[in-house]
Amino acid sequence: MSGGVKVTLLAGGVGGAKLAEGFAGISGVDLTIIGNVGDDEEFHGLWVSPDIDTLTYTLAGMIDRNQGWGVADEGHRALGTLRSLGQDTWMTLGDKDLGLHIYRTMRRQRGDRPSVIAHDVARAFGVTAGIVLPTDDTLQTRVRTASGWCSFQEYFVRDGCGPEVMGLDYAGAEAAVATPEAITALEEAEIIVVAPSNPLVSIAPILAVPGVAQAFDEAQAPKIAVSPIIAGAALKGPAADMLRSLGGRADVVGVAQHYGALIDCLLIDGTDAPQKEEAAATGQDVIVTDIVMRNAAEKRRLARTVMDLAVRAA
Amino acid sequence: MSGGVKVTLLAGGVGGAKLAEGFAGISGVDLTIIGNVGDDEEFHGLWVSPDIDTLTYTLAGMIDRNQGWGVADEGHRALGTLRSLGQDTWMTLGDKDLGLHIYRTMRRQRGDRPSVIAHDVARAFGVTAGIVLPTDDTLQTRVRTASGWCSFQEYFVRDGCGPEVMGLDYAGAEAAVATPEAITALEEAEIIVVAPSNPLVSIAPILAVPGVAQAFDEAQAPKIAVSPIIAGAALKGPAADMLRSLGGRADVVGVAQHYGALIDCLLIDGTDAPQKEEAAATGQDVIVTDIVMRNAAEKRRLARTVMDLAVRAA
Repeated sequence: MSGGVKVTLLAGGVGGAKLAEGFAGISGVDLTIIGNVGDDEEFHGLWVSPDIDTLTYTLAGMIDRNQGWGVADEGHRALGTLRSLGQDTWMTLGDKDLGLHIYRTMRRQRGDRPSVIAHDVARAFGVTAGIVLPTDDTLQTRVRTASGWCSFQEYFVRDGCGPEVMGLDYAGAEAAVATPEAITALEEAEIIVVAPSNPLVSIAPILAVPGVAQAFDEAQAPKIAVSPIIAGAALKGPAADMLRSLGGRADVVGVAQHYGALIDCLLIDGTDAPQKEEAAATGQDVIVTDIVMRNAAEKRRLARTVMDLAVRAA
Repeated sequence: MSGGVKVTLLAGGVGGAKLAEGFAGISGVDLTIIGNVGDDEEFHGLWVSPDIDTLTYTLAGMIDRNQGWGVADEGHRALGTLRSLGQDTWMTLGDKDLGLHIYRTMRRQRGDRPSVIAHDVARAFGVTAGIVLPTDDTLQTRVRTASGWCSFQEYFVRDGCGPEVMGLDYAGAEAAVATPEAITALEEAEIIVVAPSNPLVSIAPILAVPGVAQAFDEAQAPKIAVSPIIAGAALKGPAADMLRSLGGRADVVGVAQHYGALIDCLLIDGTDAPQKEEAAATGQDVIVTDIVMRNAAEKRRLARTVMDLAVRAA
């Protein structure tokens, strides 16, 4: 790690990985990312950790840029065999990606800590930022729809986010023990950033670990969130529908209310400037800026904006 | 299964699979193959069963015809990831093939019998012949060279059969329990055939299971072996060198002496006709015929020759 400013980023999948790339792309930052393990699930006996892998693949430059997840130049031969053998293959696991799941599963079965495995994978792929798990225990986001409870991947991939979300649960979270790495990353952070990831299924499962929530709460660094909602919609994923169906507002005011006193500052997009005062009524500083990240330059710009804000706040 | 003549074939890898294809390609045969699990080994936490898979892929028409093992139109993306993660990847596992290993491992961990898994895989791939394991227990062929003991795949693939074989062991064989399927296949067989597979590392591990050896011994059917050695050499693999380095003769006489009273009849190639009498001195009927299988027609011809011989013997 360089001797830069210690930035700790809470991040979920694609949106979180984009901002992580922004921080990794500017100088003077010592970046640690606490990722989401609530999407983790076993497929065909292999342990799959989609959000952590999206972070890793993105920072390693291996990501499929067209879809924002998975590995570039991917094949699906193994999945074809599994389909021939009668397995459900709605979870589109590519061959390169399966190599990682095979490795992770082997090491988990040897008794290695999931955190250590994630760290070793990131290093092997050339990622210099720290990728940290909130817990080494199993914590799984469960989604309730009219059909009952299912896993997050069943809702997200199998059902294409179609059914209305009537409830969420972070199974295992209460008993989950925070990793020392996550606690240290929050204690030592000079800036804590909440990525523009889905607040309910990317950020909430991280903070559902009691030890992480406590360390987050007690951390001295300024806490800055980037809104995942722009003009009443998520750029990607079901965040807006979820906020609405779970009784909140699917706009920046709803985001501000959701995070409440957890954060000091919320960045919203210029489009949402008219709602700035209403959002600020929650007691946060609300800053209007450009938060859309369409390319590498925009990712770095948003990261720099966050850094500048934190310096001014300090 | 059809109501044909019950043929039970003991077979190892490529040579065994060829004769299995011959029997599967002629009418009037109800074929069961007892395969070799001595080559089984765990790679990257996945259970790999090379000889059983070669049989299955061959009979399913999925085999890579150029190399005689593995699946046609194969990729190696998963192995590339595993290599990036620092894993030894000398065992060339393709992506399609890994799909099967993932499936097998998942079912083994659920507690399913390896025999049942092998049966289900064969059926899913459209194989109508029975593929039977000698045991559901772990039995692994160990090879001693000047460097010490190693697994069969380490000797065969990693070391390319380079080192001289100074000893063989079938670890776990004495305690291994024969499967009911293997015992039934031998008890009910009308013809028992020993394929032209390596006697020491393909056939011996099958018969190293005490219950299989006993059922083989007590079986009433004529027992016909096809020589894996032609003109003092194996068509494929290290059989000749192994026979020689372990104190035997690397010719059809050596094969006849190796099988001894286990079999009733040995088929040798026309090239080896001059050694017929010497081989027959072991007490077996020695039959000279064409035993090279270069194509589908030659595989079927050899299978028919064996059938005709058995009918004459009965």
